[in-house]
Amino acid sequence: MLLEAIFHQPKRNWAYAYDQDTIHLRLRAKKNDLTEVYALTGDKYAWEETRDMVPLTKFTSDSMFDYYEGEVKPPYRRLKYAFLLKNGEEQIWMTETDFQREEPDDPGRMFQFPYIHPGAVFTPPAWVKDAVFYQIFPERFANGNPALNPDKVEPWGGEPTPFNFFGGDLQGVIDHLDYLTELGINAIYFTPIFEATTNHKYDTEDYLRVDRHFGDADTVKRLVKLCHERGIRVLLDAVFNHSGKTFAPFLDVQKHGAASKYKDWFHIHEFPLNVKDGIPTYETFGFEAHMPKLNTEHPDVKAYLLEVAEYWIKEVGTDGWRLDVADEVDNAFWRDFRRVVKAANPDAYILGEIWNESSSWLQGDQFDASMNYPFTDAVNGFFVQHRMHAEQFAHAIGRQLSRYALQASEVAFNLLDSHDTPRLLTLCEGDHRKMKLAALFQFSYMGAPCIYYGDEIGLDGDHDPGCRKCMEWDEAKQDRELLSFYQKLIALRHAHPALRAEGTVRFLQARAGGSQLVMERKSDTESILVLFNRSEETAIVELEAGDQPWTELFERNHRTALENSVLAVELPAYGYAVMRTELVGN
Amino acid sequence: MLLEAIFHQPKRNWAYAYDQDTIHLRLRAKKNDLTEVYALTGDKYAWEETRDMVPLTKFTSDSMFDYYEGEVKPPYRRLKYAFLLKNGEEQIWMTETDFQREEPDDPGRMFQFPYIHPGAVFTPPAWVKDAVFYQIFPERFANGNPALNPDKVEPWGGEPTPFNFFGGDLQGVIDHLDYLTELGINAIYFTPIFEATTNHKYDTEDYLRVDRHFGDADTVKRLVKLCHERGIRVLLDAVFNHSGKTFAPFLDVQKHGAASKYKDWFHIHEFPLNVKDGIPTYETFGFEAHMPKLNTEHPDVKAYLLEVAEYWIKEVGTDGWRLDVADEVDNAFWRDFRRVVKAANPDAYILGEIWNESSSWLQGDQFDASMNYPFTDAVNGFFVQHRMHAEQFAHAIGRQLSRYALQASEVAFNLLDSHDTPRLLTLCEGDHRKMKLAALFQFSYMGAPCIYYGDEIGLDGDHDPGCRKCMEWDEAKQDRELLSFYQKLIALRHAHPALRAEGTVRFLQARAGGSQLVMERKSDTESILVLFNRSEETAIVELEAGDQPWTELFERNHRTALENSVLAVELPAYGYAVMRTELVGN
Repeated sequence: MLLEAIFHQPKRNWAYAYDQDTIHLRLRAKKNDLTEVYALTGDKYAWEETRDMVPLTKFTSDSMFDYYEGEVKPPYRRLKYAFLLKNGEEQIWMTETDFQREEPDDPGRMFQFPYIHPGAVFTPPAWVKDAVFYQIFPERFANGNPALNPDKVEPWGGEPTPFNFFGGDLQGVIDHLDYLTELGINAIYFTPIFEATTNHKYDTEDYLRVDRHFGDADTVKRLVKLCHERGIRVLLDAVFNHSGKTFAPFLDVQKHGAASKYKDWFHIHEFPLNVKDGIPTYETFGFEAHMPKLNTEHPDVKAYLLEVAEYWIKEVGTDGWRLDVADEVDNAFWRDFRRVVKAANPDAYILGEIWNESSSWLQGDQFDASMNYPFTDAVNGFFVQHRMHAEQFAHAIGRQLSRYALQASEVAFNLLDSHDTPRLLTLCEGDHRKMKLAALFQFSYMGAPCIYYGDEIGLDGDHDPGCRKCMEWDEAKQDRELLSFYQKLIALRHAHPALRAEGTVRFLQARAGGSQLVMERKSDTESILVLFNRSEETAIVELEAGDQPWTELFERNHRTALENSVLAVELPAYGYAVMRTELVGN
Repeated sequence: MLLEAIFHQPKRNWAYAYDQDTIHLRLRAKKNDLTEVYALTGDKYAWEETRDMVPLTKFTSDSMFDYYEGEVKPPYRRLKYAFLLKNGEEQIWMTETDFQREEPDDPGRMFQFPYIHPGAVFTPPAWVKDAVFYQIFPERFANGNPALNPDKVEPWGGEPTPFNFFGGDLQGVIDHLDYLTELGINAIYFTPIFEATTNHKYDTEDYLRVDRHFGDADTVKRLVKLCHERGIRVLLDAVFNHSGKTFAPFLDVQKHGAASKYKDWFHIHEFPLNVKDGIPTYETFGFEAHMPKLNTEHPDVKAYLLEVAEYWIKEVGTDGWRLDVADEVDNAFWRDFRRVVKAANPDAYILGEIWNESSSWLQGDQFDASMNYPFTDAVNGFFVQHRMHAEQFAHAIGRQLSRYALQASEVAFNLLDSHDTPRLLTLCEGDHRKMKLAALFQFSYMGAPCIYYGDEIGLDGDHDPGCRKCMEWDEAKQDRELLSFYQKLIALRHAHPALRAEGTVRFLQARAGGSQLVMERKSDTESILVLFNRSEETAIVELEAGDQPWTELFERNHRTALENSVLAVELPAYGYAVMRTELVGN
């Protein structure tokens, strides 16, 4: 038994309250090193009366480790625990203090989950488990009100540059709600819509005013109301890490220098404000002089931004916030942000832009989810760029599952591209087959998938500004076959709870060097197999599948046979299959 | 290289801001498995310009692992990093995503410390680095005002039971401040002093009133003022996990049941309140019916307790709070508690009672320290109970150092006993020699040592109630030799910054199976060696010690010789030595 590989620590993803009665305990071990894992559990004030042995089962793996998980319902909300690790005859106990041969009898040296505080249980909004998001970059989605066009607006569909404008606005979104309903999405994430100078609006001038080229507060209200009538939730983008250069307090600092009453709203190293060798004398996002970093630890700045956060939720009834550059804003700010936002709308979804591992923000006191770019990276690695083979992909996904509490995985924001990356189709070098496999995985995996506007009709584009092309509304120029694929994909997901949060995730086939992948999503009532053949060759995938009948759930481009409990599926090049069987109660 | 043993994760004790400019990075590896460790660091927005390789050095070890640490001062407060691990010719890179052979070039896949927020840097009060605490259980320290005696007070010095009273009070403490000054302590931690029914006062009746048998608010004010005049800081005990049964809101619930407006101040499972088979129908501390658990998530309860926390600091000028059963109170409460307390007194020390590993509370947003019982356990294990040999002890201490940010170790509350444990002398079975070794280690190690009242004059006693005996004021009955030892110990500590936070900690000798231990405490200006011989036999300890002269700093009961850079120290049974040399700038 490789003790150096064993890992557990209280809190975070290793010991967390899943709900007000339930604690999940997890333990990591070297791959294939353990045969059984148990937690010895009890209440520290009534150890003998409450003592229990709880089995942990392997719930995921990565390239080096297996991750075990077990569930405990402590009778008095308090939990002390140790682990018993077995490899056949060999066994050892693990306490907080050490490994030991003999069974520990002193709860004092064990790990603990001191108390389940109901208010501290991480409880993301339930609707997100069933959400299908659509990301809209308003300047490029649709022009519904040419009267609002910026000066020098260019003809719709032109080549995007970092600086040009095409006149997209919120009325344009309203005009195309039928399209979104037909597509089947039920949530929209809008990149910023507040007054700003750029086309992306990440340089806010006025947080309390809708950009004049997009509409006004009434337009947003109308938009949100119409969305809600269709069962579509709306997320706005809060750019609180930095403002724009034309934000009134920053203008004041530019004007009055050290005498400005707003000088502490920013991080100014030297007056007058200046840029030396490309480095501003004040802190910024990146080194962008037009995006001065806000001092979110300053009480006035904090109060102002929290007012903004509350205002839009209350004023127009939005369903949450996406938070720009969220990891560079202080955690105390986000904790208060969560209180304010959840007080205004307990069902609000708080989605932070974090590109790295994010578990420390997903403990119940800050965000509900982060932009899941590690997911993006893994899906691209296997389905798109072929950097990974099937086993490596399963390990990358497995590692992600291991890093987060279950309730975080259930509402993860799983995107394949965005305004900050090349478009999926471009990553696929135009190969629809790759794109479809990637999207099928995205839509059959746990978490909330998000489509970047236009991907579904074949919009392509490289990194910014290429990925911010105008939406194509001419049906003749849309890839209608791809659109139909996305519609079916979304419908499939909506129809089957096992593909959403109710289903467990397991890889039934993901071989070293392999190009075929089989994922099982299994709920109490159904088991769904999703098969992928990421190769140019036809492949036959064989699975132990019991004797029950399997139904094809999706586009059929494969052949199947069930014999002696073995399900054989012949998948063409870049083929896929989705198969379902009903489960009857044991 | 055993990759399964390598561990790093952003935040906590693995990557933290030590001050506003400095990030400490730590990495764990299998013991003796690496020869060199580096961090490849840079700013994500200016990677090439800021790219740097920073060496990490082994700073501590435990039984299975070495812990490496390095310091980075990121030019723009942001840090991306990966690690380079070497074992001779063999080398591998570690990113957030994976291990890899080739040098990573994409900061996107690296670890990150997103931004150093000045307000989020964990900065415990500096005075604690130099504090020597004395814990007083007021009912048993001294009776200074017999007029306040409880009914049925028993003669001073009688046998303590869980329920009896001896009349100790705050005037008694005032009367003996000269004693404390002569002892040399500079901080007092008082167990609770607020109105309550028991002798220990952990069942608060009125949080805003001093217990009538101890004095009144004026007595406390006078006490604190007199202490401050002597340079002694004062910590009171906040019992916020639960109240007493006679706390007015709980009396109201007992009286009015479900109709009480205070019913949500507690966690009531069933009305009327009752105890069934020893289990109260409401939540309590442990299963103690007279200690109903407070619902600290309730806004009114929170507001009330935060007012209490602020009141005593502002009203009488106390220097912080010790927090009873701190781990069973919700973290959101403690975060607000910290804000309120630090606003009232930025130098306040917040000390949580947590018996387990406590790093999640010591991140800068909650406590400054916890009652360091794992330290107690290790010291007892080696010096007192001989459960551990020298190497095991060094590993237990090393593991603790690895678990906490340096600034937490600098102000750790290092106790050897308390009102909740048997007394040190009793643990030593009356053997002063063991006791002295344990105390010498406590006073020469990093962190704030605490003496439980009376230990220094030979008070003994088993677990509660035995450990709560009356203080012995008859000098003829005091162990004056022990007292003198403690006085010298405290003076030694006060005289040498290297024994406090300025000195690094290293074990120069701690052999498997060994009974001798040599700890080095080293600052920029001095190196102090502390030698211990925890055995019945004389031992000669030999150390590479350079050619510089070594001075004996403490009681001399040993012989030394320095020859060919080797310092040979002959330690008698249970002997010790403290030796110092000055360091001159390199």
